[in-house]
Amino acid sequence: MDRSTAIQPATVSQLGLLFQGVREKTLALCQNLEIEDFGLQAAVEVSPVKWHLAHTTWFFETFLLKKYHNGYKEFHPQFNYLFNSYYNKVGERVPRDQRGLISRPTVDEVLAYRSHVDTHMQQFLSRSDIEEFRPLLELGISHEQQHQELVLTDLKYNLFHNPLYPRILDIGEYPIEKEGGWHPIEEGLYEIGYEGDGFCFDNELGRHRTYLHPCEISTRLVTNGEYLQFILAGGYRKSEFWHSDGWAWINANQIKAPLYWIPDGQGAYRVYTLDGMTDLDLAAPVAHISFYEAAAFAEWSGYRLPTEYEWEAACHHFDWGKRWEWTNSAYLPYPGFKKPSGAIGEYNGKFMINQMVLRGASVTTSEGHSRYSYRNFFGPESRWQFTGIRLARS
Amino acid sequence: MDRSTAIQPATVSQLGLLFQGVREKTLALCQNLEIEDFGLQAAVEVSPVKWHLAHTTWFFETFLLKKYHNGYKEFHPQFNYLFNSYYNKVGERVPRDQRGLISRPTVDEVLAYRSHVDTHMQQFLSRSDIEEFRPLLELGISHEQQHQELVLTDLKYNLFHNPLYPRILDIGEYPIEKEGGWHPIEEGLYEIGYEGDGFCFDNELGRHRTYLHPCEISTRLVTNGEYLQFILAGGYRKSEFWHSDGWAWINANQIKAPLYWIPDGQGAYRVYTLDGMTDLDLAAPVAHISFYEAAAFAEWSGYRLPTEYEWEAACHHFDWGKRWEWTNSAYLPYPGFKKPSGAIGEYNGKFMINQMVLRGASVTTSEGHSRYSYRNFFGPESRWQFTGIRLARS
Amino acid sequence: MDRSTAIQPATVSQLGLLFQGVREKTLALCQNLEIEDFGLQAAVEVSPVKWHLAHTTWFFETFLLKKYHNGYKEFHPQFNYLFNSYYNKVGERVPRDQRGLISRPTVDEVLAYRSHVDTHMQQFLSRSDIEEFRPLLELGISHEQQHQELVLTDLKYNLFHNPLYPRILDIGEYPIEKEGGWHPIEEGLYEIGYEGDGFCFDNELGRHRTYLHPCEISTRLVTNGEYLQFILAGGYRKSEFWHSDGWAWINANQIKAPLYWIPDGQGAYRVYTLDGMTDLDLAAPVAHISFYEAAAFAEWSGYRLPTEYEWEAACHHFDWGKRWEWTNSAYLPYPGFKKPSGAIGEYNGKFMINQMVLRGASVTTSEGHSRYSYRNFFGPESRWQFTGIRLARS
Amino acid sequence: MDRSTAIQPATVSQLGLLFQGVREKTLALCQNLEIEDFGLQAAVEVSPVKWHLAHTTWFFETFLLKKYHNGYKEFHPQFNYLFNSYYNKVGERVPRDQRGLISRPTVDEVLAYRSHVDTHMQQFLSRSDIEEFRPLLELGISHEQQHQELVLTDLKYNLFHNPLYPRILDIGEYPIEKEGGWHPIEEGLYEIGYEGDGFCFDNELGRHRTYLHPCEISTRLVTNGEYLQFILAGGYRKSEFWHSDGWAWINANQIKAPLYWIPDGQGAYRVYTLDGMTDLDLAAPVAHISFYEAAAFAEWSGYRLPTEYEWEAACHHFDWGKRWEWTNSAYLPYPGFKKPSGAIGEYNGKFMINQMVLRGASVTTSEGHSRYSYRNFFGPESRWQFTGIRLARS
Repeated sequence: MDRSTAIQPATVSQLGLLFQGVREKTLALCQNLEIEDFGLQAAVEVSPVKWHLAHTTWFFETFLLKKYHNGYKEFHPQFNYLFNSYYNKVGERVPRDQRGLISRPTVDEVLAYRSHVDTHMQQFLSRSDIEEFRPLLELGISHEQQHQELVLTDLKYNLFHNPLYPRILDIGEYPIEKEGGWHPIEEGLYEIGYEGDGFCFDNELGRHRTYLHPCEISTRLVTNGEYLQFILAGGYRKSEFWHSDGWAWINANQIKAPLYWIPDGQGAYRVYTLDGMTDLDLAAPVAHISFYEAAAFAEWSGYRLPTEYEWEAACHHFDWGKRWEWTNSAYLPYPGFKKPSGAIGEYNGKFMINQMVLRGASVTTSEGHSRYSYRNFFGPESRWQFTGIRLARS
Repeated sequence: MDRSTAIQPATVSQLGLLFQGVREKTLALCQNLEIEDFGLQAAVEVSPVKWHLAHTTWFFETFLLKKYHNGYKEFHPQFNYLFNSYYNKVGERVPRDQRGLISRPTVDEVLAYRSHVDTHMQQFLSRSDIEEFRPLLELGISHEQQHQELVLTDLKYNLFHNPLYPRILDIGEYPIEKEGGWHPIEEGLYEIGYEGDGFCFDNELGRHRTYLHPCEISTRLVTNGEYLQFILAGGYRKSEFWHSDGWAWINANQIKAPLYWIPDGQGAYRVYTLDGMTDLDLAAPVAHISFYEAAAFAEWSGYRLPTEYEWEAACHHFDWGKRWEWTNSAYLPYPGFKKPSGAIGEYNGKFMINQMVLRGASVTTSEGHSRYSYRNFFGPESRWQFTGIRLARS
Repeated sequence: MDRSTAIQPATVSQLGLLFQGVREKTLALCQNLEIEDFGLQAAVEVSPVKWHLAHTTWFFETFLLKKYHNGYKEFHPQFNYLFNSYYNKVGERVPRDQRGLISRPTVDEVLAYRSHVDTHMQQFLSRSDIEEFRPLLELGISHEQQHQELVLTDLKYNLFHNPLYPRILDIGEYPIEKEGGWHPIEEGLYEIGYEGDGFCFDNELGRHRTYLHPCEISTRLVTNGEYLQFILAGGYRKSEFWHSDGWAWINANQIKAPLYWIPDGQGAYRVYTLDGMTDLDLAAPVAHISFYEAAAFAEWSGYRLPTEYEWEAACHHFDWGKRWEWTNSAYLPYPGFKKPSGAIGEYNGKFMINQMVLRGASVTTSEGHSRYSYRNFFGPESRWQFTGIRLARS
Repeated sequence: MDRSTAIQPATVSQLGLLFQGVREKTLALCQNLEIEDFGLQAAVEVSPVKWHLAHTTWFFETFLLKKYHNGYKEFHPQFNYLFNSYYNKVGERVPRDQRGLISRPTVDEVLAYRSHVDTHMQQFLSRSDIEEFRPLLELGISHEQQHQELVLTDLKYNLFHNPLYPRILDIGEYPIEKEGGWHPIEEGLYEIGYEGDGFCFDNELGRHRTYLHPCEISTRLVTNGEYLQFILAGGYRKSEFWHSDGWAWINANQIKAPLYWIPDGQGAYRVYTLDGMTDLDLAAPVAHISFYEAAAFAEWSGYRLPTEYEWEAACHHFDWGKRWEWTNSAYLPYPGFKKPSGAIGEYNGKFMINQMVLRGASVTTSEGHSRYSYRNFFGPESRWQFTGIRLARS
């Protein structure tokens, strides 16, 4: 899995092809779903697949077609209300926890919405001045790729609540992790942040210097087998490994293992995947753990989590891309961060509090969507993404 | 609308026809639904239509076919877990608030489940000793009729959360209420409770004497127009009309009008029905109000709510059947109440606390399911049924 | 303990003496308290002792002195805000859950407030037309007696949260219960409600006929020993004994025994009393159980709880007064109930929902405050009063 | 106010004097309190004054006397349970939200506890090898100084819930802020963290290099007058200034001004201080604002909050010490951070998540307790400390 370079379209026609390919890919993820699966929402932070299909479409309609495509008529007057996610500047919207209650428009109607917007987008893409819209187009495409990952992770979370544990598709969630060692990071100044002409999100910009102190970073991820050792050693019962908030959280929620691990009653675990219940593969990297669990495991192991700076400085020296790797860096603006103006400015900046940075990518990340400088972020209790652990030591 | 007598099947073949008719009626209620509508659950006490379709089927399968139909093979080993409602004695079940998360079995699979059980029930109904099972059959049929009403009221509640306000079907939710007066109830002893050979629920039994004091009961329901006067007179802003709990409830939940009333911004209201948004018909009986609102309206009007005894003693002197009428009687056992043994014993007795009795029936009650002795019950804050107000005075 | 007749003052001077005696009794209850104990509030429904001292004083100041005592000057302009309990008509007030946060006025200042009001009340009581104020005086005295009981029960609840389990005073919480049998109640009409010229609360009025069916009522209370058998028989683990709400409540709150029972780790229980931790006396009547527990015990025992009508019809045939006895009657108005006008009208009527009636009196009830017709009421989960169980059978 | 250097005791006898002085200072803060004030706890994160008095004493008893003072007998066997704050390794403890429920031991008993421990500490301080215990002694003294600040801020918060708004003492909460300008920070490497032989907390250690980019930092704090402009400009009603979490927080909690600001009904504000209600001094630095509000103000002003690194690099060029200044740095370990072993290791490390760093000191910070390298930390919604705003710009 080579995640090190994102696709960087050089010409306008490539951009059109990329648009088309990404739009088709989203639908392909849904190929094994029943109509009934499209509407599920098991938690406020998890959205129905149908909503993802419509929201990504709304993004192109709202920020490109309605603004810049002459004569474009919006598909439905209330879809802006229904499928806006969090852009306050674009108006009111359905409360986030009620997305699963919107049975109409139906799946078929949402697919018609997609077709309608795709048709007009293809016209739009043939404009002679299309190059001027490249940043917005790339943002829309990257935005849809982000939601492709969410289609899979949200679906997994939603279906997990069904005691029949449905099987949907096999995406290789637990690839074997190769052996590894420690890669040294030398003391000194490093340049951090995105560099180049391709697309990146606003939060990766403001490439800047940072000073790192000498340390080493593991060239492989922590495995299920190692995490199981932590559990068997009483890791979830000993407060000394945990942040105070983490200790409160595992006790309040009775957390005793990663999400999707189910005790088999004989001391071992079974694991739910989108391909159904499976045995726990001890050689595969652990997934679906919170920051609290990642940090407690690191404390127990005698090591620590890397910072996002250490990670970026060293990432060319190891394989990455199977798990979103929790770092011990809070999600904060880079020194030169500038919020874009307008609604697009709500994209990243307003989330820069109460979140930790994750680096890398996961088995559900769309191809072409990962970058060495990519800054993913979630609250420290989040587990429904394919999150994992890479260790460091000073 | 003549609600005064329930259908009372006299022969076995009539029972078979009744079974078939009720089963078909349930499906007929769903004729205008999209697949996506079947899975909605907007509140813990509201169930998805698909769940109702399966649960009523599970009732026949569990209490008749699996127990008494030789060689019957259950349709699916996990449907007992999925579609048990609250019978602790029949085992574990899906948490009530997660019924909307069960996308599989699909609607088609649930319809196949219904067919499977119906086919076997038809065989079962041809037994020579079928008369012995009449009580259970009648209970199963009445149970499904109860859920027919819930299919409509739950659907209305679920669809109301969609800002598109979908139109499904016209069931005449707001019939005009005729003029009326006061009917006197004389002091003395009255016999209360079900009498006869037909079916009734266990909570109606134990026919017994009760002593009533002289009073009068209105022969008509309170209308939307009258309720609007209460609102305009500041009814929701004056604590003196309210129970202490009711006052706290309307303030905590910002309740300012019946459920489904939406201010139009010009001082009037629009109302959501299963046939879409409509104007408020001032001559129709008010609906979708809590016990707290019913009691506050009565206090404001200078009258009071009747007790369930007064209601039953006088009900032959007025039309009823449009609204479930809140009484000022708590839901408690009649003097001679006996819980049936086994899981069926969980049917009514265990709910005899924290609920108020409603008498009558509503526009969504299935034909043949209403009786003068019928004791419906809900918590004092419930509003999603077609609840209404009849006044009394001492 | 003879609880059957309340003190009924015949002359004005007796009323004055009664007033003085009741006011002194309240202070006497506090004799062993430290200043620090007066301010505790461990739950929203439990008030600080200091608040009780001030609130009962506020009642006389507000409803008598400020209204009818010429030239009376209120003690402090903000005490109406601080010490009003729930009378909406008398204005705003400190939120009920924040009574424990009012360190000023101090205990000494509240005692000065009591002296100030007492002095003026003594003047007021010497009016020649004092007879006209008898109803309000009696209400104020009964109100203070009610709060005397709350001083003790709230104190017990508050101090129980201190792991030192303080000892305050010995009020004989667990008197031995004598042997008993079943007393028959014959079928027929009974007069229910207060009769006489003495004081009673508004909710006891509207003496009226009720028809009772034949049954028997126990002449003694259920003991700790019997309740322990229920626990040992798995009573708290078997859903079939419980109301649906009760079952949810014991599971959500991990209720496994009466309030104040603490497992000693060897299979027995220790019990907290105002006189400190003691052994469980098996021959004493069980106390501090919710309605849910009372009803579950009755179901397990094969009997049932009496209605409040049965209780009142038979109460002259057994001793009562040790425990507030849960009945299976909801707290609702008697047929002829009339709410008094003005703020005093908020005394009882607005609580007539979501509560069950308790009859009798408890070891903490003030002498002269109990009546055969007294209707106490609490929500079905309440346990901090000295509640108990008397059984009936049909 | 010169906050730049902490007292650094050079000799053993100075340490003894410092101990004695700090212990006396704590009591001096309580001089105007009534007994009733000592027990108040208005929120889970706010402790009663009595608890602070006992807990700081427990610290010396637990970590010095019981471990190292031969023959020391603990004052009371249950005080460890009562007055441990959060040290899991030292055993169980009273739930944090129930500290206000512990009326016994009384204030007098806690004062006796303090005397007992002080007496033994004076003996202990005369050991010939006392120098070995200097780190623990300094930690205990600094710990008590921290709690001195909490005594004042918790007291203010607790008394604010009393509608009488008690006056306790005048500590000059709103000193005038002098004029100021922008101080430039040059690009380059800076050394960050404590340097020297004096006392500091573990989280200040690991002095290390960091690379700063060019920017400017204000030499004065934001004033009440400037903050009022933000309010009047609709700052609390415009989502574009707020973090997403902050916007949700102000709306859920109806936050419209700093804590302790009370609208006077004529468009201006009154402010609660420990010296009672006062007018708002527009020239004094704003206080009692959350991180969310500090960040929204900065966004509105067109500037930003400094990082803790920028602050430390520049702090010798401006006066500080009136307000704890929110930085845009999350509270995370310095590169070389090492958790001390044992229970003391719980001091700082386990809180390094979900908190933002505040630099400086406040008008309630004890003399000798502030340092340029001091890292205070609170959750982004905290307001009960004297928190303020210093701006920066790139």
